[in-house]
Amino acid sequence: MQDVDLVVVGSIGLDTIETKYERQEDVLGGSVSYACAAASFFARTGMVGVAGTDFPEEFMDCYRHFGIDLEGLQLQEGSTFRWSGVYEDDMINRRTLSTCLNVFADFMPELPVRYQSAPYVLLGNISPELQLHVLSQVTAPKFVLADTMDLWINIADEPLQEVIRRVNMLALNDGEARLLTQEQNLKGCARRILDMGPDYVVIKKGEHGALLASRSGFYLIPAFPVDDVVDPTGAGDAFAGAFMGRLSQQDGIDDKTVCEALLYGSVVASFNVEAFSLNRLELLDKQAIADRLAALKAMIRIG
Amino acid sequence: MQDVDLVVVGSIGLDTIETKYERQEDVLGGSVSYACAAASFFARTGMVGVAGTDFPEEFMDCYRHFGIDLEGLQLQEGSTFRWSGVYEDDMINRRTLSTCLNVFADFMPELPVRYQSAPYVLLGNISPELQLHVLSQVTAPKFVLADTMDLWINIADEPLQEVIRRVNMLALNDGEARLLTQEQNLKGCARRILDMGPDYVVIKKGEHGALLASRSGFYLIPAFPVDDVVDPTGAGDAFAGAFMGRLSQQDGIDDKTVCEALLYGSVVASFNVEAFSLNRLELLDKQAIADRLAALKAMIRIG
Repeated sequence: MQDVDLVVVGSIGLDTIETKYERQEDVLGGSVSYACAAASFFARTGMVGVAGTDFPEEFMDCYRHFGIDLEGLQLQEGSTFRWSGVYEDDMINRRTLSTCLNVFADFMPELPVRYQSAPYVLLGNISPELQLHVLSQVTAPKFVLADTMDLWINIADEPLQEVIRRVNMLALNDGEARLLTQEQNLKGCARRILDMGPDYVVIKKGEHGALLASRSGFYLIPAFPVDDVVDPTGAGDAFAGAFMGRLSQQDGIDDKTVCEALLYGSVVASFNVEAFSLNRLELLDKQAIADRLAALKAMIRIG
Repeated sequence: MQDVDLVVVGSIGLDTIETKYERQEDVLGGSVSYACAAASFFARTGMVGVAGTDFPEEFMDCYRHFGIDLEGLQLQEGSTFRWSGVYEDDMINRRTLSTCLNVFADFMPELPVRYQSAPYVLLGNISPELQLHVLSQVTAPKFVLADTMDLWINIADEPLQEVIRRVNMLALNDGEARLLTQEQNLKGCARRILDMGPDYVVIKKGEHGALLASRSGFYLIPAFPVDDVVDPTGAGDAFAGAFMGRLSQQDGIDDKTVCEALLYGSVVASFNVEAFSLNRLELLDKQAIADRLAALKAMIRIG
């Protein structure tokens, strides 16, 4: 079997999602599902995650449809992680209704030997301790991106600091960046995080795009404005996955290749929100990605 | 005396502003003050507004410092319009504490003869009836931009519709666009507004930039991320003023010149929020504008 270009670790979930318009029960979700599917358009992607014995075979077929390498997927006796949430009318803010960790509670990410030499690693949003455990298994990473969330900033500051010190890029949303740094201004937040170690920090602002900070400056990464947001779940994971997948196919890593790969992240994320679960990504092809990328570039080619 | 390139109508106010860090009393404000000051870096700008006999001479000097043409400024017996408000910690949302219309209550904008042939007209945020009264006095406008706000959408829908029908561009913020069109999605909002008549609509999103819609497509106008927002008051007016000032110096009006002029709007607005009142704009020069414009362009020159 071929090696993988990119290893992604994160959660696998069965999500119950309610929006103003619709409710969907037990659909395929979780950060690793979205990120791997998004990355698969660009790179050979290995998944590291855990599902329960109740995980529907059709969802395994969905992973296979994307050509995701599943050697790192663990199937454990018990129920799959479940999350349910409801979106406000603005389709941005959401409230968690319930979280059942199930088999995810004892998740210990183990990388198959074939994954350990992967040059690109995406540490999806799981506890920083587990992210560190993954880092300890990769032998020669070229670029590691860690995603995180408010929960870990609040309860696991020390291991999170260690993660931040050891990765090349940290991705988090604006509220989380403010929480982590105790700064209001996003440029100030980004500077503080760069001081902690990484070469890049991406502060995600949902429909407003993202702010990228590097050692040499700031960049404004646009979000593609979609006509109809059906379900925003997983947009950040799809953004990170497509970014890492695309970046892994570039020769070098510098501000230019990082920015360009982030544009791909924006584009794939914008498709992702057009339907529940992976439904839109399942219908996506490289031509549609290229077309929307061109449209997005035209929208910012001004002045 | 020379003719003016641009006529701006709007409010003149003495503002009392409170932020998390500071409180400033009776500082020079009002939409026409910000817009004219911003426009003055690019164009011969005529002000149409009203102040009371209590209007401090130093504020007249401030207008003169910018080289604003003041023939259209009325001084009426009584007190100047006063507004006071307090910003939340996010420096975006604000609450009005008090509004005293004073001489502004009976404001009737009359254009000096020299202004009536001005090719560019900025209808700042005043009642749509007054905006129409200004429109009735200009003889051959080449490009008219109208700004508006939620108040007029709520209480003066019919005259506002007439304004929208008759101008080349409407500017409003995201919440107002949703209120006006009863649509949630901003692209949808923009399409509806274009259907009402204008060639362009700019939906302002504060620190997140703006969405421009034209007959041929959408553009993402970035905001320049500033290090320290001291007072956001007047940012939208400075944005519109600098835009119109710059546009009036271009040969043609098309998507390219409009986008380019909007970038100037972003840049001048970003300076404006770095201090209270017109304090930062008073220290500004063309070189600083050019430098920041170059920096902003570099931040979006990606992919």
